[in-house]
Amino acid sequence: MPLSQDQQAEIEAQRATPRPTLRAVSEGMERHLYHAYPVLDHGFVRVIDYMGDDAAICQAARVSYGKGTRSVQNDEGLIRYLMRHWHSTPFEMCEIKLHVKLPVFVARQWIRHRTANVNEYSARYSILDREFYIPAPDQLAAQSALNNQGRGAALSEAEAARVLDILKSDAARCYDHYQEMISDDGKQGLARELARMNLPTSIYTQWYWKVDLHNLFHFLRLRADSHAQYEIRVYAKAIARVVADWVPLAFAAFEDYRMGGVTLSAQALDCVRRMLKGEEVTAETSGMSAREWREFEEVVAG
Amino acid sequence: MPLSQDQQAEIEAQRATPRPTLRAVSEGMERHLYHAYPVLDHGFVRVIDYMGDDAAICQAARVSYGKGTRSVQNDEGLIRYLMRHWHSTPFEMCEIKLHVKLPVFVARQWIRHRTANVNEYSARYSILDREFYIPAPDQLAAQSALNNQGRGAALSEAEAARVLDILKSDAARCYDHYQEMISDDGKQGLARELARMNLPTSIYTQWYWKVDLHNLFHFLRLRADSHAQYEIRVYAKAIARVVADWVPLAFAAFEDYRMGGVTLSAQALDCVRRMLKGEEVTAETSGMSAREWREFEEVVAG
Amino acid sequence: MPLSQDQQAEIEAQRATPRPTLRAVSEGMERHLYHAYPVLDHGFVRVIDYMGDDAAICQAARVSYGKGTRSVQNDEGLIRYLMRHWHSTPFEMCEIKLHVKLPVFVARQWIRHRTANVNEYSARYSILDREFYIPAPDQLAAQSALNNQGRGAALSEAEAARVLDILKSDAARCYDHYQEMISDDGKQGLARELARMNLPTSIYTQWYWKVDLHNLFHFLRLRADSHAQYEIRVYAKAIARVVADWVPLAFAAFEDYRMGGVTLSAQALDCVRRMLKGEEVTAETSGMSAREWREFEEVVAG
Amino acid sequence: MPLSQDQQAEIEAQRATPRPTLRAVSEGMERHLYHAYPVLDHGFVRVIDYMGDDAAICQAARVSYGKGTRSVQNDEGLIRYLMRHWHSTPFEMCEIKLHVKLPVFVARQWIRHRTANVNEYSARYSILDREFYIPAPDQLAAQSALNNQGRGAALSEAEAARVLDILKSDAARCYDHYQEMISDDGKQGLARELARMNLPTSIYTQWYWKVDLHNLFHFLRLRADSHAQYEIRVYAKAIARVVADWVPLAFAAFEDYRMGGVTLSAQALDCVRRMLKGEEVTAETSGMSAREWREFEEVVAG
Repeated sequence: MPLSQDQQAEIEAQRATPRPTLRAVSEGMERHLYHAYPVLDHGFVRVIDYMGDDAAICQAARVSYGKGTRSVQNDEGLIRYLMRHWHSTPFEMCEIKLHVKLPVFVARQWIRHRTANVNEYSARYSILDREFYIPAPDQLAAQSALNNQGRGAALSEAEAARVLDILKSDAARCYDHYQEMISDDGKQGLARELARMNLPTSIYTQWYWKVDLHNLFHFLRLRADSHAQYEIRVYAKAIARVVADWVPLAFAAFEDYRMGGVTLSAQALDCVRRMLKGEEVTAETSGMSAREWREFEEVVAG
Repeated sequence: MPLSQDQQAEIEAQRATPRPTLRAVSEGMERHLYHAYPVLDHGFVRVIDYMGDDAAICQAARVSYGKGTRSVQNDEGLIRYLMRHWHSTPFEMCEIKLHVKLPVFVARQWIRHRTANVNEYSARYSILDREFYIPAPDQLAAQSALNNQGRGAALSEAEAARVLDILKSDAARCYDHYQEMISDDGKQGLARELARMNLPTSIYTQWYWKVDLHNLFHFLRLRADSHAQYEIRVYAKAIARVVADWVPLAFAAFEDYRMGGVTLSAQALDCVRRMLKGEEVTAETSGMSAREWREFEEVVAG
Repeated sequence: MPLSQDQQAEIEAQRATPRPTLRAVSEGMERHLYHAYPVLDHGFVRVIDYMGDDAAICQAARVSYGKGTRSVQNDEGLIRYLMRHWHSTPFEMCEIKLHVKLPVFVARQWIRHRTANVNEYSARYSILDREFYIPAPDQLAAQSALNNQGRGAALSEAEAARVLDILKSDAARCYDHYQEMISDDGKQGLARELARMNLPTSIYTQWYWKVDLHNLFHFLRLRADSHAQYEIRVYAKAIARVVADWVPLAFAAFEDYRMGGVTLSAQALDCVRRMLKGEEVTAETSGMSAREWREFEEVVAG
Repeated sequence: MPLSQDQQAEIEAQRATPRPTLRAVSEGMERHLYHAYPVLDHGFVRVIDYMGDDAAICQAARVSYGKGTRSVQNDEGLIRYLMRHWHSTPFEMCEIKLHVKLPVFVARQWIRHRTANVNEYSARYSILDREFYIPAPDQLAAQSALNNQGRGAALSEAEAARVLDILKSDAARCYDHYQEMISDDGKQGLARELARMNLPTSIYTQWYWKVDLHNLFHFLRLRADSHAQYEIRVYAKAIARVVADWVPLAFAAFEDYRMGGVTLSAQALDCVRRMLKGEEVTAETSGMSAREWREFEEVVAG
């Protein structure tokens, strides 16, 4: 269970007392505030704060004095236009702050998104909890034969059991030793900043992460994508569900123009045009490499 | 008068309807929301939105589950510690969004602060208003003899009158011609994106500007400083007054450790130490250049 | 003429003395170094320095010990793969530093690209030259009737002549007054930081601009595009010509996957698939807005 | 030994063939290029490329046409002025690219410096080497009693031996299991992206890291500081030695105004002034907290 009773009580207390504000309020987002949505076996995502809503995107795009909304229909058209034509700055006018609990190896991928603000739990200052990510058996897969950085078929039951046994026992032993090294019970006790290096990257850390909506969309496009590693993808998807309620018009545009769209190269575009004119285009006449042609065939077949 | 009745009415409407939120609320900031504080002759600064408060800084620094406040005293001590030791990330967890109206030559300095989000009024798309910054007579000063990029003594009354006359008449003529060029009354009318180039940089533009508190403090340190050009300094000071009510603990720490503090070089620190031991230190024995010594003397004299 | 004899002599001196280096050298780029390529009537672009080449992109992508080149063919395949799959970090490992002279209204668009380093000529410290952008007559166009932020048909000869006359005479008068205000000949002379505000944004400024290749490609994609204002597009195109010689493999991939490619929305992709299956798709059955359908038709027709 | 014979041969090959360039060349830096300077037990830092030198900083600050050097003395004065007055943009005009091998827990601190470009060795794609950081015995210290995030006294010999034994045996066992899990010898083999999570953060990774000189100075100020964790401080110091030869004037200014300097708060400055006037100032009359006063006493005593 990711949250203690004390933690749960603190969260409840925050949810219990609405206060008046003059700022833009997203009703859809208020319902999510502070809730810890579980991800993986011990992780979670919870929204701490947000700034702006769909109307705020339009207000900034128009540099207007009032709320910026003439009508929802106008706002929708403007937002779709902005998304379609890569006008990113109005989306930067919305901001979200999340509290995330996640395995260290996921945190290492996540932090590569640099245009964001982060405060991470300090293992120099504090003691890490005994919580490690142990994959569900159906997530244990072999190295992909096609893609050098992905997963292929699920492991056999016996092999999966053997792997889980290793992951659990190594994590337990490393954590026992971590505790033993830092313990000052009858001895000096190793500095935390050193002892932590004995812990595997399956251990959970947590951080506050704040990002604007444009950069969040970029994160979601890369990390909610099927090529992303499963363990970060589930975080991206949990965040996406919240964003859909926060800024429904912007999120729909994002889905239509980014997540659900494709980019065609000059060669691919040329092939589409020729095919629409009735020409039979083959790998040989496409001007693409074998790999590109294979990717292209998947795109047009759907 | 910077705001039309329509604009004023839009602002009043936004201020009239508080709504409930579960987010952190800064009472001090709510009072400022949407008010347009006049700056220079036609400019203003107004807060459109904000995220976080003093407690949110501490909450992020502690990566805590609840509000992060144990007591105001604890929060104050933590905030001062963070500021003193350059732990900037917790301050990045607060965000502010401003609507600013400002002359173009001021906007050109302002935009150099890159870690911020901006939506500017588009002169390709829209027609600029006939509003130019004309300095108050007491702001008309000669080039500084000491500092190559500053102002010296005030101009004589006659010279100031002559300058004002030039600024006003050139601005008026350029704007008349701008209107004439874009007018399609009986002719084609020049594209706005071209016609705008005839306008002097004293013309007012406006933008939405969003920035986190850490980067805002950096902006204020450089632009509220006495070396900054007067015309941007007055904007920085107007913003500083609002920030003081938004995050009073963080702002007090900023004043003590940044605005009111000084940085001593290795040589200057060495001189202070020697002087405190009773040694008579002179420009010659200081190890500093003449200019550095002069700056140092001002610092220690106060 | 944009360069004085002194300036030309300085440039020649720099070009005259090659020195040995162990760093990656791009032969194609060495030929461009320091040359000032004219843009518009008084502007230019010249390369001051660069870091890396095509091989350096591959070397970084492989985090390898040596030069990173197994063969040019391997490098080409890797570079195209990286570009196709939005792996942007290896392209960030190349850097370019330019010296650019450009009108202020162009500089104001350019500076919106924030992930770059800039040093601009200071009009607080120095006196600006009497050089203004005056468009060639064939560039004087009316406001577009279709696109709110673009140009339409060329102005009639009479109207163009009238506009040029305004632009020239207003610029000349404003500059005369600028000089008069700052002159300390028999008077105090206004501070430069104030006098400059009388100058129209057609005046030329100059800066050093340094950017990594990934962000430069992003700049080129937006600014070399046909929707960009002509006056910045010509700078983007001048830079693109240099980049093509600097990193020929990366530039070719950029042309194929970015400049020459298109992004299809979910709806557009669905329409393409249906059309390839022989279905007759119309604006009504497309699921797109009228405007999107028009844009889509242009894309598939070519 | 961190480098294999093949890797050493690749490095030698790169060092063997200087090529002519017209770019700015730093003789001091050329001597360092590609050399792998050892850090910790298996790590290293080596310079892959650089852009600019001291003269380039001045050239950019002056936005000049030629090399920017009038004389070394002028350059030195200008560089010191820029550093003293926080004019950071000219320092951004120099760039360095490093190849670094470092333990994962150090990489996790390092990556928090966001204004840099990074390509890290991918453990999704490749297999990590069996190399772990095992501290030298004199680096094994207890948690500090004074500072919650630092080290105190060295561990006793017996305790140190016990800790080393744990670190070595846990790392060895985890790596054995990592190899066993990914092995496809007679079985499927777990995907690398999953198996890696079993490895402790003492394992070495490597990356290419590119940063401008201003941001590198910021990194060095924080990470070469005595409060930084020893394991990152040694990397910062190795880099500092190289930078001192690359841009000697800028580095000397950095040492005088940043590393060797101090920042005094408003209260501390007031105390210095009173003390210089002969007043006896105590903790009680200082206006500082007990902790600040202790820090202040250390600063003025030296």
